[in-house]
Amino acid sequence: MDVRLAKRAQEISPFYVMELLRRAKQLEAQGKDIIHMEIGEPDFTTPPAIMEAGIRQLKTGEVKYTPAAGLPELREKIAEFYRQRYAVTVDKKRIFVTPGASGAFLLALGVTLNPEEELLMADPCYPCNSNFIRLFDGKARTLPVDAASRYQLTAAQIKQHWTKNTKGVLIASPSNPTGTLIGAEQLKQAVHTVNALGGCFYSDEIYHGLVYDDKATTALEFSDNVFVINSFSKYFGMTGWRVGWLIVPEAFIDATEKLAQNIFIATATHSQYAALAAFDPHTLAELEHRRAEFERRRDFLYDALLNLGFEIPIKPDGAFYIYANCSKFTDDSFQFALDLLEAEGVAVTPGKDFGINEANHYLRFAYTTSIDRMIVAMQRLDRFINKG
Amino acid sequence: MDVRLAKRAQEISPFYVMELLRRAKQLEAQGKDIIHMEIGEPDFTTPPAIMEAGIRQLKTGEVKYTPAAGLPELREKIAEFYRQRYAVTVDKKRIFVTPGASGAFLLALGVTLNPEEELLMADPCYPCNSNFIRLFDGKARTLPVDAASRYQLTAAQIKQHWTKNTKGVLIASPSNPTGTLIGAEQLKQAVHTVNALGGCFYSDEIYHGLVYDDKATTALEFSDNVFVINSFSKYFGMTGWRVGWLIVPEAFIDATEKLAQNIFIATATHSQYAALAAFDPHTLAELEHRRAEFERRRDFLYDALLNLGFEIPIKPDGAFYIYANCSKFTDDSFQFALDLLEAEGVAVTPGKDFGINEANHYLRFAYTTSIDRMIVAMQRLDRFINKG
Repeated sequence: MDVRLAKRAQEISPFYVMELLRRAKQLEAQGKDIIHMEIGEPDFTTPPAIMEAGIRQLKTGEVKYTPAAGLPELREKIAEFYRQRYAVTVDKKRIFVTPGASGAFLLALGVTLNPEEELLMADPCYPCNSNFIRLFDGKARTLPVDAASRYQLTAAQIKQHWTKNTKGVLIASPSNPTGTLIGAEQLKQAVHTVNALGGCFYSDEIYHGLVYDDKATTALEFSDNVFVINSFSKYFGMTGWRVGWLIVPEAFIDATEKLAQNIFIATATHSQYAALAAFDPHTLAELEHRRAEFERRRDFLYDALLNLGFEIPIKPDGAFYIYANCSKFTDDSFQFALDLLEAEGVAVTPGKDFGINEANHYLRFAYTTSIDRMIVAMQRLDRFINKG
Repeated sequence: MDVRLAKRAQEISPFYVMELLRRAKQLEAQGKDIIHMEIGEPDFTTPPAIMEAGIRQLKTGEVKYTPAAGLPELREKIAEFYRQRYAVTVDKKRIFVTPGASGAFLLALGVTLNPEEELLMADPCYPCNSNFIRLFDGKARTLPVDAASRYQLTAAQIKQHWTKNTKGVLIASPSNPTGTLIGAEQLKQAVHTVNALGGCFYSDEIYHGLVYDDKATTALEFSDNVFVINSFSKYFGMTGWRVGWLIVPEAFIDATEKLAQNIFIATATHSQYAALAAFDPHTLAELEHRRAEFERRRDFLYDALLNLGFEIPIKPDGAFYIYANCSKFTDDSFQFALDLLEAEGVAVTPGKDFGINEANHYLRFAYTTSIDRMIVAMQRLDRFINKG
C-alpha cells in the first residue's frame, strides 16, 4: 500500500457485491445466463418526455454552465412538487440541484460535518452513506435496528446514543436494503429529538415515490430545520443523468451555495433541462404505471421467498429491495451468494454490504428485473436450496 | 451564523467576482449594456459532432449508470490522445472519467489528503483549488510567484518550503489567472523534486490545448507517479456537460475506484458518449480554428491593455486570461473593478479572487468574448481611466 494514501481512503469499505459482479461477468462471457437481482437501478428506461426535453436542449446548441444552485425553473418546479405531493412549502432558495443524490450528500455533509464528529444511522443501511461520512473524516456510528422499529432508528435510540461528538442523525426511508418506511409519528419524534439536541437531521428520501402501501412522509412536514436528500434517479427513472437535489435549512443557504460553486461549478446542464419534464402530468402518469409494476414484483417476490423458507419479518413498503433472512440455509450469506451465482447464475447482494448487524444471515434481492425472469430465478433458487 | 456549520464551510472563501456579477445582472435588467470579461467559460458552443453524439445516445433511450471509472471506450480514447498528442503511454486503468475537473480534484485529494496536511501552490492561483484542499480539512500553503518563474513554482521553492506536514504540490499550467505555462525543464525538476521528497504531485492541465506559442507539457512526460487533472470543458468546449478526467499513479487505482463508486456512482452517461466524439479528426480541426481565434483575441487584448498603461510582465501563453497590473491607476483593484462596472459596464475579475500576492494591483481579463466586443470594452476602459 502506498504510504501517501489518505487514511479515509484506507477505511472506505469495498462493496462485496463487486466481487459477485466480476464473477457474473466472467460467467456471462462464457455464455452462462445470469439473472441479476443485485442491481440497484430500475430496468425501465427514462420516460420519453424527459428524454425529449434533453434532446431539445442539446439541439439548441447551448450547453453552458447553469448557476451553481441549479436552473431557477427547476428549483421552482421542485418547490411546486413539494406543495402538490406533500402539502409542504419550501422556499426555492433552500433547494439546490446536485449531481445526483451523491452530490446532495457531498454538499450536506460538507457544510456541516467536522472531522471526528459522529452521525447516528441504522444498521443495516446503504454503504455509501457511511462512506460519505468517512470522506469528511467523520464517524458513522451505526445502531442495530430490527423489525420492531421497521428497521428505522427511534427517538429513544437517538437520545440513548447521543454524545458530545454526535453531529446528527441520518435516516433513509424507504430504507435500502430493507425497503421499510419510517412511520410518520416515528419520523416526527426523531426530527424533534434531533432538533432539541441541537444536531443536524439528514433525511435520505431518494426512494420516495416508489412506495406501495402507505404514503411516504418527508421530514419537511415536521420541520424546516432538516437536510433532505432526493434524486431524479429512482422514481423518475433518470439514473445515468446524474441529477438530484438537496434542501437545506435557511441558515445554510449561503454556505451551501459557496460549496457548490467550488466543488461542482454546476450540475450537467442538459440533465437539468431534461428534469424539467419530470413533473409533467403525463410523465407522472407513466411513473405511476411503473410504480404499480414494481408493486406487483414486490408482491410476487415476497411470496416466493417466504414459500422457499426465507424469513421476511415485515413486508417492505417501498424501494425495490427485499432483505431476506436466510439463516435457515446458511450462517454465511456471502458464501451462499457466491455459491448461488456459481451453481445457478442468480446474483444477489450479501448482507455484509449493509453493515454488521446479523449481516451474515441476510441477502438483498432487488426486483429490478421482470416477473418472468424472477420466476426462473426462484426455480433456480429452489433447486439450489434443496440440493444443498 | 449557525453553530452547526462545519469549520471548513466557514473558511471557504467567497468569489469576490460574484458581487460584480450580481451588480452586472442588476444593470443589465435596467437595460445597460455590460461587456463580460470576467467569465471563465468559452463563448463557443459545443462542437457539432460532440452535440450529435450526445443526441444519438439519448435517442437510444438508454441512460443507465456507466462503470464508476467511466466508459471503457472513453478511457481508451483518452489513453490514445496521450499517445498521439504527447507521445506518452498511459495505462487506461489509470484513467478515471469524472464529473468535470471538479470531480477529478475531489477524487485526487480524497484519496491522498489527510486533515491538516498541506499542499504547496502558487499565489496567484485559481481559488477553487485551495477550496478543494479545505474541503478535506487540509491546508493550502500558497507561495508568492512572479514573472521571473512565469508565475509558476520552482523546485527551489518547493524544497525550501517543504515541511513534515507537506503532502504535495499542485501546479496549474497554463495558470489561471496568469495564462502562463511552466517550462518543460521547470516542470520536470518540480516533479522529480516532489517524487524525491515522497510527496504527491498534482498537475492541473485543464487549459492544455488552449496554448498559442509553445507546446504544453504534461507532467506524465516526466513520471508515472503524478496525478493529472484534465477536462473536456475548456479546449473541447463542453463546460455544461460536466465531464473531465483524472490520471492516478498505479498504486492509487483501487482506492480511486472505490472512492468514485461511493461519491459519484458515475459521470453522466450521455456526457461520456458525447465526449467520445471529442477526438474525431474533424472535431479537432474545428477546435484548432477556435484556438486560433483565441490566439488573435489574446494578441489584441495584450496590445490594447499595454497601450492603455497596464503592465503585463510576460505575454500569457495560454488559457483565455490576461492578468494585468493596474497599479498605475489604483491600489485597490477590487474597487477599480466595481467602479469600472458601474461607470462603463465592463466586468472584470479582481486580483483578490486569486490570492493575496499583490492582488490589489491586479485584474484578470478573460477574452471569452469577441474582438468586436473587446474593442468597445477597451474604448470604455480608456474613457474610465482618463476620466479618473
